Amino acid sequence: MRLRGRKGIREAIESQTDLVILNPQEYKGNWSEYFGNDLPIHVELGMGKGRFISQMSLQHPEANFIGVDMYDELLRRASEKARLARKEADQDEADLPNLALALFNIEYIEDIFAPGELERIYLNFSDPWPKKKHSRRRLTHPRFVDKYRTLLNERGEIHLKTDSRSLFEFSLNSFADMGLRMRHISLSLHGEGVNPDHVMTEYESKFVEQGVHIHRCEVMIGSEALRSHEKQLAAQPL
Amino acid sequence: MRLRGRKGIREAIESQTDLVILNPQEYKGNWSEYFGNDLPIHVELGMGKGRFISQMSLQHPEANFIGVDMYDELLRRASEKARLARKEADQDEADLPNLALALFNIEYIEDIFAPGELERIYLNFSDPWPKKKHSRRRLTHPRFVDKYRTLLNERGEIHLKTDSRSLFEFSLNSFADMGLRMRHISLSLHGEGVNPDHVMTEYESKFVEQGVHIHRCEVMIGSEALRSHEKQLAAQPL
Ligand SMILES: C[S@@+](CC[C@H](N)C(=O)[O-])C[C@H]1O[C@@H](n2cnc3c(N)ncnc32)[C@H](O)[C@@H]1O
Ligand SMILES: C[S@@+](CC[C@H](N)C(=O)[O-])C[C@H]1O[C@@H](n2cnc3c(N)ncnc32)[C@H](O)[C@@H]1O
Repeated sequence: MRLRGRKGIREAIESQTDLVILNPQEYKGNWSEYFGNDLPIHVELGMGKGRFISQMSLQHPEANFIGVDMYDELLRRASEKARLARKEADQDEADLPNLALALFNIEYIEDIFAPGELERIYLNFSDPWPKKKHSRRRLTHPRFVDKYRTLLNERGEIHLKTDSRSLFEFSLNSFADMGLRMRHISLSLHGEGVNPDHVMTEYESKFVEQGVHIHRCEVMIGSEALRSHEKQLAAQPL
Repeated sequence: MRLRGRKGIREAIESQTDLVILNPQEYKGNWSEYFGNDLPIHVELGMGKGRFISQMSLQHPEANFIGVDMYDELLRRASEKARLARKEADQDEADLPNLALALFNIEYIEDIFAPGELERIYLNFSDPWPKKKHSRRRLTHPRFVDKYRTLLNERGEIHLKTDSRSLFEFSLNSFADMGLRMRHISLSLHGEGVNPDHVMTEYESKFVEQGVHIHRCEVMIGSEALRSHEKQLAAQPL
């Protein structure tokens, strides 16, 4: 990713104290206070240019959204995108009550969220790290999933989307080996037409244009998430 | 599949009482007596031309193998193949102690096996039935998996291989929705080279030649299968 003058980027994001958070550690355990309400918190790990998180925050005022990435240039782009999306939706660009963009390395995710503080984690087109020797860096390695499990609350879920066959295979096995319950497993998300309010990420629309298959699944972590899933299944006849 | 003169086929298979079983219902609950030992019983549902089941029975004298198909022409071909495989392995063609080929419709599978009588069920390249209105015919529909669950013993497992992305997706969701534990999920079985004694089916080698991806997974059904899997996982460090 091309980086602009570093000083300009820093200045641009530092001035956006309503949206960009450069010291997210300071909010650990206090995100509800930060947002000023008790709405559930959804986080995208590795939000990139931010289309997904800004669209989701617009479409879902009933939740708070945090996008995490480790590159300040991406935070700058994502913040621009978020304001533009608000404008296009005829809303006040400055009114971003349920969105935050946090500069942080996911490796230390437990330093910015307290146990049970999150309700959903989105992993969209995470780096596949195809070499076996790098498998520990994959964001669905059991060592990461173990952290997510701690951070998610009783309604907690992980939603994963990826173009990478190898990352998807690895992720399914991680979840299965950890005894986690999956649902809505898809090997070709855009094959049969998706939900009309499905929000695509930047990587996703690029891949869909190229005809690349998108894989997706949801993992139910919290006891309440599991219970309501079981209830739904029981209501469907065989 | 081209069918030969029906009379000739019937005669050919009727004469092979050591290998071909035209009335498998009569052995329900008595397969160990049929084989004359207590070795675990592995079944392939929809064996087609029989390469897999005959090779497996050769390579694994420690188990009994039953191939099921509903077409007599396929049973005839499979029986030829089984004798040929024995011959090529420098064994007596007539010596097929751990193999049986059964003519039967899988729809009524519970009529030929008693609860707990089987240790493994192989589903290899089962018909995908891609139309939604035919989904109940897929051999991994929960109504079938429910039957398999009854027929499998405490070490029971289901092993699935398919080229069909849609059947694999459907199968993973069936297993997940039923709360079953999967392992060794693969989206490209021949991608990284398989086990050297991996036995390919006729459909599989055709697809592998064409460069089509093969999907595979194992499902642990029995309590003992689950327990030993958990033990293995616990022995691996994160
Ligand atoms: C392939 S991009 C996908 C971006 C976006 N989710 C999409 O689908 O368009 C992966 C993103 O994850 C970010 N990322 C990777 N590892 C990270 C880490 N350890 N901490 C924070 N961000 C990370 C990268 O900077 C990049 O923006
Ligand atoms: C696509 S072929 C695969 C054959 C073989 N397993 C292979 O991989 O080469 C599916 C087989 O399942 C058999 N089959 C399908 N439905 C069946 C049923 N209800 N009962 C018995 N056999 C069935 C068909 O006759 C066919 O031989």
